[in-house]
Amino acid sequence: LNEIAAGVLKGQRVAISKAISSIENRDENSRALLKELFPHTGKAFVLGVTGPPGTGKSSLVNELAKRYRSRGAKVAILAIDPTSPVSGGAILGDRVRMIEHSLDSGVYIRSMASRGDEGGLSHSARNAIRVLDAAGFDLVIVETVGIGQAEVQIVGVADLVIVVLMPELGDEVQAAKAGLMEIGNIFVVNKSDLPGADKVIYNIFSILSTRDGWKQASVKASAKTGAGISELVDKIEEFRASHREAASVGERKLTNLREELLRNVALNIDEIVESKMKNDAGFKNVVAKVAAREIDPESATDLLVQCFVDRFQAKRKKTKGLK
Amino acid sequence: LNEIAAGVLKGQRVAISKAISSIENRDENSRALLKELFPHTGKAFVLGVTGPPGTGKSSLVNELAKRYRSRGAKVAILAIDPTSPVSGGAILGDRVRMIEHSLDSGVYIRSMASRGDEGGLSHSARNAIRVLDAAGFDLVIVETVGIGQAEVQIVGVADLVIVVLMPELGDEVQAAKAGLMEIGNIFVVNKSDLPGADKVIYNIFSILSTRDGWKQASVKASAKTGAGISELVDKIEEFRASHREAASVGERKLTNLREELLRNVALNIDEIVESKMKNDAGFKNVVAKVAAREIDPESATDLLVQCFVDRFQAKRKKTKGLK
Repeated sequence: LNEIAAGVLKGQRVAISKAISSIENRDENSRALLKELFPHTGKAFVLGVTGPPGTGKSSLVNELAKRYRSRGAKVAILAIDPTSPVSGGAILGDRVRMIEHSLDSGVYIRSMASRGDEGGLSHSARNAIRVLDAAGFDLVIVETVGIGQAEVQIVGVADLVIVVLMPELGDEVQAAKAGLMEIGNIFVVNKSDLPGADKVIYNIFSILSTRDGWKQASVKASAKTGAGISELVDKIEEFRASHREAASVGERKLTNLREELLRNVALNIDEIVESKMKNDAGFKNVVAKVAAREIDPESATDLLVQCFVDRFQAKRKKTKGLK
Repeated sequence: LNEIAAGVLKGQRVAISKAISSIENRDENSRALLKELFPHTGKAFVLGVTGPPGTGKSSLVNELAKRYRSRGAKVAILAIDPTSPVSGGAILGDRVRMIEHSLDSGVYIRSMASRGDEGGLSHSARNAIRVLDAAGFDLVIVETVGIGQAEVQIVGVADLVIVVLMPELGDEVQAAKAGLMEIGNIFVVNKSDLPGADKVIYNIFSILSTRDGWKQASVKASAKTGAGISELVDKIEEFRASHREAASVGERKLTNLREELLRNVALNIDEIVESKMKNDAGFKNVVAKVAAREIDPESATDLLVQCFVDRFQAKRKKTKGLK
C-alpha cells in the first residue's frame, strides 16, 4: 500500500492507475491510501467540461489537453461516463480509448463510471481527482456526459466549469441548456463551422450574467479546425488569474467540502439502514402489507424509520451490556 | 382535504391537479391524501416511455394517447422533466403545454420535475402515478427525458417500458443505448422516414433477448406519418395479455415496492441527519479541519457517522428520562 501511495506522489502512471482502481472498487486499501494522499492535495486546477451529448466535448478536451501540454503543464483527463444499470460498468470506455491514441503519453486519461449515487458525479470521482492532484498534475480536466442532474454535480468539484454547446441542437437539448446556463463560467459553442453558430453565440451572449465577480464568457470554437481554442485557453487563464486571490473561491471550496461530507455521512447511514433491513422479517412483513394495500407507503416509511431508530437503540444497549 | 380525495376518486381534473401539486410541494396534506387514495390504486396500467433526447418521445406518446382514447380508455400522461439545479423547476414545461393543445380534453397531462433525488424519477412521480391510478385512468404514460440513470428508474414504476430510438443518433447516444437495451420491453425506432432506420432495426433485432418469458420486441414507427403506431399498440396489448397472469409480475411489483420503501427510509434518515448536522458547531469544525488537510474526508465521515449515532443515543436517553 505505502508503495502505491509513494508511487502516486512520484507521479508514476502504474501507481496512479492502481490507486484509482482501488478507489473505484472501494477495496480495503482505498481508505488508507486516501488518508496518505490527502495532505498532498489542493494544488491542481480542476477544469469541469460538460454539455449535451454530441457537442464534441471529448474532442475539445483533447485540444485543450494538447495546448496545456505544450505549455509544459502536466495534464490528466477524467471522463465520467453514464453507468449501465445492469452491468454496472462505464459504457463509453471505447470513446475514451479513442482519445488516448490521439494524445501524447504525457497526458493521463481515465474513464470512470458515474455509479449514479450522486446524480452522475460519484464519490469515487471526487477521490480520483484527489489522487491525480497528489500525483502532481497541474490541470485535471473532468468531463461529464448526460443531460440534467449529471452535469450539475461538476460544479461541486471543478474550479472552473466549461459548458460545451453547438449549433442545431434539438428542442429538448435546447431546453436543458437552461440548467447548464446556471452552472457554466465559460460557454463554448463548438462545431462553429456548422450553420447557426453565430445565432447560438448571440442567444447565449444575451443571457450571460456576473457571478462572484466573473462575467460568464462565451467562445466560438471548433475542435476540428482548431479555431477559437487559443481564445478559450486565454479565457481560462483570465478566469484563473481573477480567482486566484478571491475570497469567494475559498468559501466555495468550503461549501463543496461541507456538502461532500454531508452526502458521505448520509450514504454511509443509508448503507447501514439497507444492510439492517434487507433480510429483516419485519421489513418483509411491512412490504407485504403495502402490497396488499393495508398500509400506505408513507405510513410504512414512518413505521420503518421508527423501527430503525429503535434497533439502533437496542443494539447499543446490548453492546453496553456485554462490556 | 377529504374533498380533494373525493374529487380524485370521482376523476375530477381540478382535484387531480390539486392532489398532484400537494404531493409535488410535499405540503401538510399530501400524506393524508395519499393514505386515503392508496387503497384505490393498483388498477392502472403504467407505460414507461424513455430514450435519448430528440428521438420524438413526446410525439409518440401523443399518438399512443390518441389511439387509446379512441379505444375508450382514460389516459393520463406524466412527463418527468430534468430539473433546473438552481430554480428547482421543470424546464420542459413548454414542450408539455405544446402537446396539450394537440390532444382532446379526455387526456390528462402533467409535467413534473425530476428533483434528482432518485436519479431522475422522483418520489413525487411515484405518488403522482398513484393519484392518477386512484382517479380511474386506465393507462398512465410516464415519459422521461435524459441519458443515463434518469431513464433507468422508470423500470421501477412501469408495467411495460418502451425505449424510443431513431436513426442517425450521435456516438454518445448510441453508447447510451447499451443501458437502454437492458431496460426496454419494446423498442421503437421512431422517425423511421429518416435514412438508416432499417439499419437501426437490424442492429437492435440482433441483440433482443427474452426476459420473464417476454421476447423484447422492436417496432419501426413514425409519429409524424402515423406509420407503425398500430403495430406498436398491438405489441403493447400482446405484452399486457402475456403478463396479466404471470407470477413474475407480482414478484416484480413487490421488488419495486421494497426498493421504494428502502429508499424512502434512507431519504428520511438523510433528512434527519442533514437537519441535525447543518448548523452544528462540531460539524463545522470537522469541515474546517478537512479544508486545512488535517484530516481526510473518509476519516471525517467515519467520525461524523459515529457522532450522529451517539447523538441519536443521547437524545433517546434524554426523552426517556423525561417520561
